[in-house]
Amino acid sequence: MRWRLLLEYDGGGFAGWQRQENAPSVQAAIEVAVRAFSGETVLVQAAGRTDAGVHATGQVAHLDLAKQTTATTLRDAVNHHLKPQPVAVLAAEPAAADFHARFSARGRRYRYRILDRRAPAVLQRGRVWWVPRSLDVEAMNAAAQRLIGRHDFTSFRAAACQAASPIKTLDRLEVRRVESEVWIEAAARSFLHHQVRNLVGTLHFVGVGKWVPEQVSAVLAARDRRAAGPTAPPEGLYLTGVDYDLPVGSS
Amino acid sequence: MRWRLLLEYDGGGFAGWQRQENAPSVQAAIEVAVRAFSGETVLVQAAGRTDAGVHATGQVAHLDLAKQTTATTLRDAVNHHLKPQPVAVLAAEPAAADFHARFSARGRRYRYRILDRRAPAVLQRGRVWWVPRSLDVEAMNAAAQRLIGRHDFTSFRAAACQAASPIKTLDRLEVRRVESEVWIEAAARSFLHHQVRNLVGTLHFVGVGKWVPEQVSAVLAARDRRAAGPTAPPEGLYLTGVDYDLPVGSS
Repeated sequence: MRWRLLLEYDGGGFAGWQRQENAPSVQAAIEVAVRAFSGETVLVQAAGRTDAGVHATGQVAHLDLAKQTTATTLRDAVNHHLKPQPVAVLAAEPAAADFHARFSARGRRYRYRILDRRAPAVLQRGRVWWVPRSLDVEAMNAAAQRLIGRHDFTSFRAAACQAASPIKTLDRLEVRRVESEVWIEAAARSFLHHQVRNLVGTLHFVGVGKWVPEQVSAVLAARDRRAAGPTAPPEGLYLTGVDYDLPVGSS
Repeated sequence: MRWRLLLEYDGGGFAGWQRQENAPSVQAAIEVAVRAFSGETVLVQAAGRTDAGVHATGQVAHLDLAKQTTATTLRDAVNHHLKPQPVAVLAAEPAAADFHARFSARGRRYRYRILDRRAPAVLQRGRVWWVPRSLDVEAMNAAAQRLIGRHDFTSFRAAACQAASPIKTLDRLEVRRVESEVWIEAAARSFLHHQVRNLVGTLHFVGVGKWVPEQVSAVLAARDRRAAGPTAPPEGLYLTGVDYDLPVGSS
């Protein structure tokens, strides 16, 4: 029986989603919790293999389980065995046998949170990128609009990126102020490695007035990683949702 | 020279605002940081002496400093010396010689955050009261409206409360859903000890259907602490603001 899980986690203490030899991963934490409940050694596969330190409020994963159970029992039991790790199953539901969290996904949504003020982050420490000066949100959003669409995103691609092509379609990149923070919302069918954090690093240069929005078009056209801004830190990034052709609950 | 400070802190690691012999306090953390900057042993007095574990996003305090400095230098220097403690000075400004953070205050505002879902708190751990079932926000808000106004709040007063009278005027008590959380906003000139948390403990009983909103009027009329619900935990409570007759910056 295939199950789909909706997951939230604090990426701060993990080396990322993916299981590794000598470092804690979100994947291993969930696999261990599922084994404690079912006695089965399972493979839990996620829609997005988030990097070290990156959070999720809407990660989706799937696994196959021989044990007979219900969605609420699976959710509650895995949460019980996950304690005290900062990972939670928000929902579990039966999935079609051919559902694959990664390959069936039609879209990923990310949010990046920046706290732009002189005083350091306190209550949001580890949850935001702290930038000690006020950002020009309007300029950042104007720059962001120049990046939307189908482009060669080589300028925003990590050297280690394993994608076959640097051409992606960015469906949404929106910058807005939310109280004392600046939120950047990004959506695409899929992203290159570090693409969101590299986009944010470039928008940050616009936000502090180092670049004008128009320059960002030249950065994109350069197709050269060195033309763009640095990679923004992981602690501000959240995988907020994954979209599938079939709405949640109908598969 | 008297200074007014606007403060944010994570109360989780502190025994409360007030300086104590053998436990960390927010007050001592700030006094130590001010001394590191100025060489002066100062008394920092706050508008609200928050309890152990209670947070603040808008605490106000004052102190007297002989050293000549500017508002931005004071803010940045104290923040520098506060590191790595989870306390920050959001703003510093000169205050009138007769300004007193506590006695000049004309109003206090608090927010209480509840995460009401089956899955435990992860990204909001230590920042909310986690309640593992969905709350009836409409019923809670209806109950809250019955508590607004000038009343004898003995039913919601901690045994240790040192206030001269249990009669207070509750100006605002509002319950609303904010995404996956329930927020309770409370405002009054002043509150009794544990009053907000005791009000929340009672509204929680309404939210889970144990009490109907009408019963809350009887709880209030009982003037007996045993008639009300239990004290809600500290980690959901935030002192969000303090109001003065003179707007900030004009004193």
